Amino acid sequence: MKYITFLLALVISLTTFAQNTSAENDSLALRKLYDMSLLNGKSYEWLDHLSNQIGGRLSGSIQAEQAVQYTKKELQKLGLDKVWLQPVMVPKWTRGTKEYAYIETKPGESKTVNICALGGSVPTPVNGLKAEVIEVQGLEDLAEYGKEQIEGKIVFYNRPMRANLIQTFEAYGGCVDQRYAGAAEAAKYGAVGVIVRSMNLRLDDYPHTGSMSYLDTPKDNRIPSAAISTNDAEYLSSLLKLTPDAKFFFKMSCRTFDDVQSHNVIGEITGSEFPNEIIVVGGHLDSWDLGDGSHDDGAGVVQSMEVLRLLKESNITPKRTIRVVLFMNEENGLRGGNKYADVAKQKNENHIFALESDAGGFTPRGFSFDCTDAQFKQVEAWKPLFKPYLIHFFEQGGSGADIGPLKNGNSVLAGLRPDSQRYFDYHHAANDTFEAVNKRELELGAATMTSLVYLYDTYGVEGFPTKMPFKN
Amino acid sequence: MKYITFLLALVISLTTFAQNTSAENDSLALRKLYDMSLLNGKSYEWLDHLSNQIGGRLSGSIQAEQAVQYTKKELQKLGLDKVWLQPVMVPKWTRGTKEYAYIETKPGESKTVNICALGGSVPTPVNGLKAEVIEVQGLEDLAEYGKEQIEGKIVFYNRPMRANLIQTFEAYGGCVDQRYAGAAEAAKYGAVGVIVRSMNLRLDDYPHTGSMSYLDTPKDNRIPSAAISTNDAEYLSSLLKLTPDAKFFFKMSCRTFDDVQSHNVIGEITGSEFPNEIIVVGGHLDSWDLGDGSHDDGAGVVQSMEVLRLLKESNITPKRTIRVVLFMNEENGLRGGNKYADVAKQKNENHIFALESDAGGFTPRGFSFDCTDAQFKQVEAWKPLFKPYLIHFFEQGGSGADIGPLKNGNSVLAGLRPDSQRYFDYHHAANDTFEAVNKRELELGAATMTSLVYLYDTYGVEGFPTKMPFKN
Repeated sequence: MKYITFLLALVISLTTFAQNTSAENDSLALRKLYDMSLLNGKSYEWLDHLSNQIGGRLSGSIQAEQAVQYTKKELQKLGLDKVWLQPVMVPKWTRGTKEYAYIETKPGESKTVNICALGGSVPTPVNGLKAEVIEVQGLEDLAEYGKEQIEGKIVFYNRPMRANLIQTFEAYGGCVDQRYAGAAEAAKYGAVGVIVRSMNLRLDDYPHTGSMSYLDTPKDNRIPSAAISTNDAEYLSSLLKLTPDAKFFFKMSCRTFDDVQSHNVIGEITGSEFPNEIIVVGGHLDSWDLGDGSHDDGAGVVQSMEVLRLLKESNITPKRTIRVVLFMNEENGLRGGNKYADVAKQKNENHIFALESDAGGFTPRGFSFDCTDAQFKQVEAWKPLFKPYLIHFFEQGGSGADIGPLKNGNSVLAGLRPDSQRYFDYHHAANDTFEAVNKRELELGAATMTSLVYLYDTYGVEGFPTKMPFKN
Repeated sequence: MKYITFLLALVISLTTFAQNTSAENDSLALRKLYDMSLLNGKSYEWLDHLSNQIGGRLSGSIQAEQAVQYTKKELQKLGLDKVWLQPVMVPKWTRGTKEYAYIETKPGESKTVNICALGGSVPTPVNGLKAEVIEVQGLEDLAEYGKEQIEGKIVFYNRPMRANLIQTFEAYGGCVDQRYAGAAEAAKYGAVGVIVRSMNLRLDDYPHTGSMSYLDTPKDNRIPSAAISTNDAEYLSSLLKLTPDAKFFFKMSCRTFDDVQSHNVIGEITGSEFPNEIIVVGGHLDSWDLGDGSHDDGAGVVQSMEVLRLLKESNITPKRTIRVVLFMNEENGLRGGNKYADVAKQKNENHIFALESDAGGFTPRGFSFDCTDAQFKQVEAWKPLFKPYLIHFFEQGGSGADIGPLKNGNSVLAGLRPDSQRYFDYHHAANDTFEAVNKRELELGAATMTSLVYLYDTYGVEGFPTKMPFKN
C-alpha cells in the first residue's frame, strides 16, 4: 500500500512538474514572440510599402497584381519551405471618373454632396441622373410605400448604425443589407437609383464604398447605387422634411469588365512531425480603391506574413505545417477564399486550424472561435498565457470570410478581434490610410496571432486525429 | 428539524432571489448608463469647446482661467446641488517665443531640429547657448563620465522608452527620471544645458514637454533643459558617433513668474441617505500648452462631468454624495490635488471612494485600484457586470496623481485604465488635439466610470463604516 501511495505521489508530482514546465515554456515562448514583434517587427515596414508604394488594391487592378508580386517576393526572402501563387479568376470593376452629386432644392439652387459608387454598381447615364428622393429606414419599408410612391424616384436608405452597440461589427451587420441588396430591392418598385447612408458610426464627410449585388435583377432593370457621407445623409434627410420634392443628381462612370486572372499568395513552413496537419493564417490582399486599404486589410496581410517570420526568426521548428495565405478578392467576390478551400478539398488536405485577421490593425483584444465546445475548452485553458498582453476576449462565434469555406466540422476557425471602436471611421473610405494604423497596435496583433498559432502547433487541435500518414 | 430546514431553505432562496434581483437591477442600470452616454452624451461636445474654443490650459494662463469659468457654468446648468470654486495658488511658467535649435557639424554647416522647453526650465541666454554634446543613457551614467568629460557641455539624455513593455505607462515610468531630474543632476557635473529624448514610443518630429525640477540646485547653477523629438534624437545620436565634437545650439525664452491664484472646480449631488460619505470623480483642468490637451486631460475632465450628468439624467438618486472635482495644476505642481485633500482633511470629510481619469480618452479597458485586499474582492465581484462592455482590467495598483493625497487607509482610490498604446504618441505634444480623440471611445470611458460610481454609491465601500452622523 505504501509503495502504491508512493508511486501515485510520484506520478502526480511528475505530471504537475511536466504541466508546470510546459506552461512555463509556453509563457517564455509568448514573451519572446511579443518582444520580437515589438522590438524588431517587419509588419509595419511591409504595410508602409503596400500602402504607400502600391496603394488601393481593387481586384483586377494593376495595384492588386503589384501586391501579389511584392508579397510573394517578401515571403521568398523569409526562407520558407515553399512559396507559390494560386491562380484564381476575379471580377474586375472600375470606379472611373470621380463621382459627382448635388441636391437641388429648386432649379439653380443646389449643394454638392459627397458620394461614391458602391462596388459592382452600374453607371448612371453619361449625363447623370436627376430625380426626386424617397427616404426609407430599410428594405422592409419599400413594400409599405409601394410602387406608386417609389417609381421614378431615387431611394435613400438612411437607417444609421446603432451607436449603443458596443461591438461595432454588430452595428454594421444590422445595417449593411441596405448597401448590399438596396438596389435590387428598390428596382422591383421602379426606383431609378439608390443612395445609401455610409456604414460609419461617425458624422463626417467620407462616403464609404463596399460591395452590392443586383441578385437576380435582369440586366436592363439594374439601377445605379451610391453611398453618401453621414454628414450629407443627415443634411439630405433634414432637407427632405422641409422640401419633399427636392431633387438629387448624381453621375457615375463605373464599369464591370470580364473576369481576369489573379492569385492567392501562399507560403509555408512544412511541419517537422505532422506535415499533413495544416495551420493557416491569413488576411486579404485586395482592398477597396478609395484609400490604400491599410486597415482593410493591409494590416491582416502583413500580420499574417509576420506570423511565419516570427516563427522562423525565433528558431521554433513547427511540428505542423504553418501556411500563410494572402487571399485575393475578399471585398467583392470572395473568389480567393473559395478557390483556396476548393483546392484544399481536391487535394484532401487536413486543415486543423485557420486564423484570419480582417478587422483592422487596432490593439488586439482576443479571438472569436468557430469550433466545438470541447475545442473551445482547450482554448480557454490558454487564456492565462495571454493575460500579460491584455488579451482577454475569447468567445465562440464567427471567424472570417476568407477562411469560412474551410469549415469541415473538425477544424477550428478563428478571427483576430482587435478593438473595434474606430474601425468604421475608416472602413472602405478614402481615410483608410497608413497614417491611421499605429505601429505598436499592429505589432501586438501580429504577436497575438503568432502566439495562438504556436499553441495550436504545439498541442494540436482537440478532437482532431493526429499522426495521420503523410500524404504527398 | 423539518421546520428549521424549511426556514433555512426559505432564507437561502430569498437571499438568492434578492441577489439575482440586485444583479439584474445593476445590469439594467449599467445598460442604461452606457446607452445614454453613447446615444446622447455631452462629453464630446464639452471637449470640443475646451479644446477648440479655449485650447491649451497651462496653469496660470488665461486659457486655464477660461476653462475654470466654462466648466463651472456647464456644471451649474446640470442642476447639481452645489457648484463652487476652490481657490488654490498655482505656479506660472511661460514658454515665450517658440524655441529654436540646430546641430552644427562645423561652422556654417547646420541642421535645425525640433525641441521644446521642459516645463519649469530657465531660459537660455538671450542669444542662445552653443556647446558640445555628451550623450548618456540615464542619470546614473553621469558619475561614470565625471566632471572632466561633462563640464561645459550639453548633456543629451537618450534612453528610449522600452517598446516591448505592453503597458506604455510602465515604459514611461522607466524613462521619465531623465526629464524630471536631468538638469539638476547634470548641473552638479558642470553641464551648461540639457537635451532629453522625448517620452514617445514612436519615431516622429514632435518634441514632448513635461515637468522638470531643479530640486535643490542653487538658483545660479540652474541650466536650461529641453526635449528633442525622437527623430531628431536618433539623428543627433548617430551624428555624434561620426562627429563627437559637433555642437548643439538652442535658444529658449521661458520665464517663471510669481504664483497666481486659480481654482479647482467642484460640483456635487448631495447624497440622499449618507450625505457625509463622499465619492469623488475627477480629472485635471490644466494641460500643457503645445497642443490643446484633449487627451491630457480634457478627456478626463469631460468624462468626470459626464458622470454626474448621466446620474442626474437617468433619475438615479445617489444615496451618497457624488462630487466632481476638476483639479488645477496637475502638470506642474499638483497644487489642486493637494489643496483639495487639505481642505477635505480640515473639514473632516469622509471620502470613501475617488476615481480619476487621466490616461487619455481611448477605449476603456478597466481600472486600477489602490485599496485593501478585502476591498478588491468586493470590486472583483462586479466584474461580470462589465463584461458586455469589454471592460476586463481590474487590478490592484496605483490610482491617479490628483486623488493620491486623499489616501487614508480606509478609502478606495481608482484610476480609469484606457487602452494605452497610442497615449504617448500625443502626450504633452502639439498633436494632443481634439482630432486625436474618438467620440465613442471617450463616451465608453464616461459610461464605464459612471457604472463604477453607481456601484459604489449603491453598495458603499467594503470596510468603511456607513451611517455615520451627518456633519455640516
